[in-house]
Amino acid sequence: MQLQHPYLLFLGDAADDLAAKTAAGVAQWRPEWCVGQLRLPGCNTSLDLPDMTLEEAREAGARTLVVGVANRGGVISEAWQQTFLDAIALGYDVAAGLHQRLVDIPALRAAADREGRLLADVRHPRDRFGVGTGEPRTGRRLLAVGTDCSVGKMYTTLALEAEMKRRGLKADFRATGQTGIFIAGSGISVDAVIADFISGAVETLCPANDDDHWDIIEGQGSLFHPSFAGVSLGLLHGAQAESLVLCHEPERLHMRGLPNQALPGLQECMDLNLACARLTVPQPRFVGIALNTKRLSPEQAERVLKETEDRFGLPTVDPVRTGVAPIVDRLA
Amino acid sequence: MQLQHPYLLFLGDAADDLAAKTAAGVAQWRPEWCVGQLRLPGCNTSLDLPDMTLEEAREAGARTLVVGVANRGGVISEAWQQTFLDAIALGYDVAAGLHQRLVDIPALRAAADREGRLLADVRHPRDRFGVGTGEPRTGRRLLAVGTDCSVGKMYTTLALEAEMKRRGLKADFRATGQTGIFIAGSGISVDAVIADFISGAVETLCPANDDDHWDIIEGQGSLFHPSFAGVSLGLLHGAQAESLVLCHEPERLHMRGLPNQALPGLQECMDLNLACARLTVPQPRFVGIALNTKRLSPEQAERVLKETEDRFGLPTVDPVRTGVAPIVDRLA
Repeated sequence: MQLQHPYLLFLGDAADDLAAKTAAGVAQWRPEWCVGQLRLPGCNTSLDLPDMTLEEAREAGARTLVVGVANRGGVISEAWQQTFLDAIALGYDVAAGLHQRLVDIPALRAAADREGRLLADVRHPRDRFGVGTGEPRTGRRLLAVGTDCSVGKMYTTLALEAEMKRRGLKADFRATGQTGIFIAGSGISVDAVIADFISGAVETLCPANDDDHWDIIEGQGSLFHPSFAGVSLGLLHGAQAESLVLCHEPERLHMRGLPNQALPGLQECMDLNLACARLTVPQPRFVGIALNTKRLSPEQAERVLKETEDRFGLPTVDPVRTGVAPIVDRLA
Repeated sequence: MQLQHPYLLFLGDAADDLAAKTAAGVAQWRPEWCVGQLRLPGCNTSLDLPDMTLEEAREAGARTLVVGVANRGGVISEAWQQTFLDAIALGYDVAAGLHQRLVDIPALRAAADREGRLLADVRHPRDRFGVGTGEPRTGRRLLAVGTDCSVGKMYTTLALEAEMKRRGLKADFRATGQTGIFIAGSGISVDAVIADFISGAVETLCPANDDDHWDIIEGQGSLFHPSFAGVSLGLLHGAQAESLVLCHEPERLHMRGLPNQALPGLQECMDLNLACARLTVPQPRFVGIALNTKRLSPEQAERVLKETEDRFGLPTVDPVRTGVAPIVDRLA
């Protein structure tokens, strides 16, 4: 499934910035693909994009209406549906990453069928995958792994792709979650794949490539998260990544969503990832650490970055504050 | 989903014993639930059960026609469908564990809807699961883990359940695959669950229970199988098993289906399982080793069992040759 850009970002009636964080991510990383935003009455957030009607954006070249808003439960609000129907009538594809599928709403499905437009439910893989093989394949690959969910793996890998491209390296971000798929225009939401096919799906996502080509693979979850570790392990095995980057948020008190579950230590987390990665890569190695220091003052952040770098002997960055150049230096 | 017994085992046109191994497993472990077998022209295998027509078995009390035969690709042969339609008309539920779903065949679905009968596709979980929490829960649990797929995990756990019940212990086999589900009458095919919900599904499968109750949980795959390790890890975390049994086939040359992938060492396999299990169980321990020695002579088998027991200091059995009593002794 390949999404057609440019995009018009649909913010709907997003209650706050957080509700529109998917749209914000797309606007940040692919501004050249975003012609504008579409907001409905009640919308309490805005991106740095012009407000447009469906018609205006279509004239400006938009080909896909990207649903960049989430609400509780991940359902498609009835308040949005007329906009989606109008978009389909105007020739848009509609793409969403919600729990509820666009294709399961009969009126949308009928309209899309009639107009020959794509309804892209990027959270719900439609392809059938084979089981993983673990067979060695050409090309170079880097995977972000984490001590926890939502510690900055997507941001880190996107920053690495950008920095590598800036240096003229052949690099492609490979998306494994909804927002990443909108940003890449394609990808596989690996946590929504049938369990048997996790590693096989990832092998499909980042197949054999040129010897000097890098796939920079978005991580998901953590081997230490009791809810999602199976996804993380299948991703690790399927990625066959010679290079790993550890992502971590120093101030986090417990595993996301689980107040009684402590975070692993960084060394412990690297050790287990390396031990498991060796199943499909002869000599995996960590090439850097990405800390999310957003809760720290600049001085605190500087100190924790330096302490971590000294302790592990690995380039340690905050992709937002410092960029990721030292990690790319290590790769080269 | 609860299957109604007694069963009539449908062997169809099974080309050989292997094609009917699901039926054979059910007949072996739940003979009291099996009133007979139904074979079509071309069937080249037989169980130790009377041949019966649908009508005869129904009179003998059968309530579910269990499709105990598999063919290449896991599809539902057209040659079987008239039998299934006749069964539904006679008041049977029909249960299958194939890749293709019974409910996706319009004629079967229509007949089942009309007659109010259940089409049970046990390989395709219909329930929605929550994500796992890893929260401690009461009751005692044992999980079989393996160096590889198909090394005897189901057989081992069924033998443990039988031995524990024989001793008057409270024990329930918890099925995680198709054949196991027919044998238990319920269960969850964990490799067919959406990846996000592996551990959550397993938490549902073996919920909190009495302090003296044992759930004996069927394992799947191996942390060392590049195709399926994600399933195995989610199962390990969701099972929250204080006791683990390692299953292994000594003569196996490579990981199942992957000629280039070596088997892990037994110690390595136990170490990684313990390291991962600790995420949701404070002090997991191995309580025994089950070797599948079917390719060895009695003398070879005796030697490898003794060597393994001496080396690891754990009760080491072949559930088929020796039974599993020494492992149950260790549990008690």
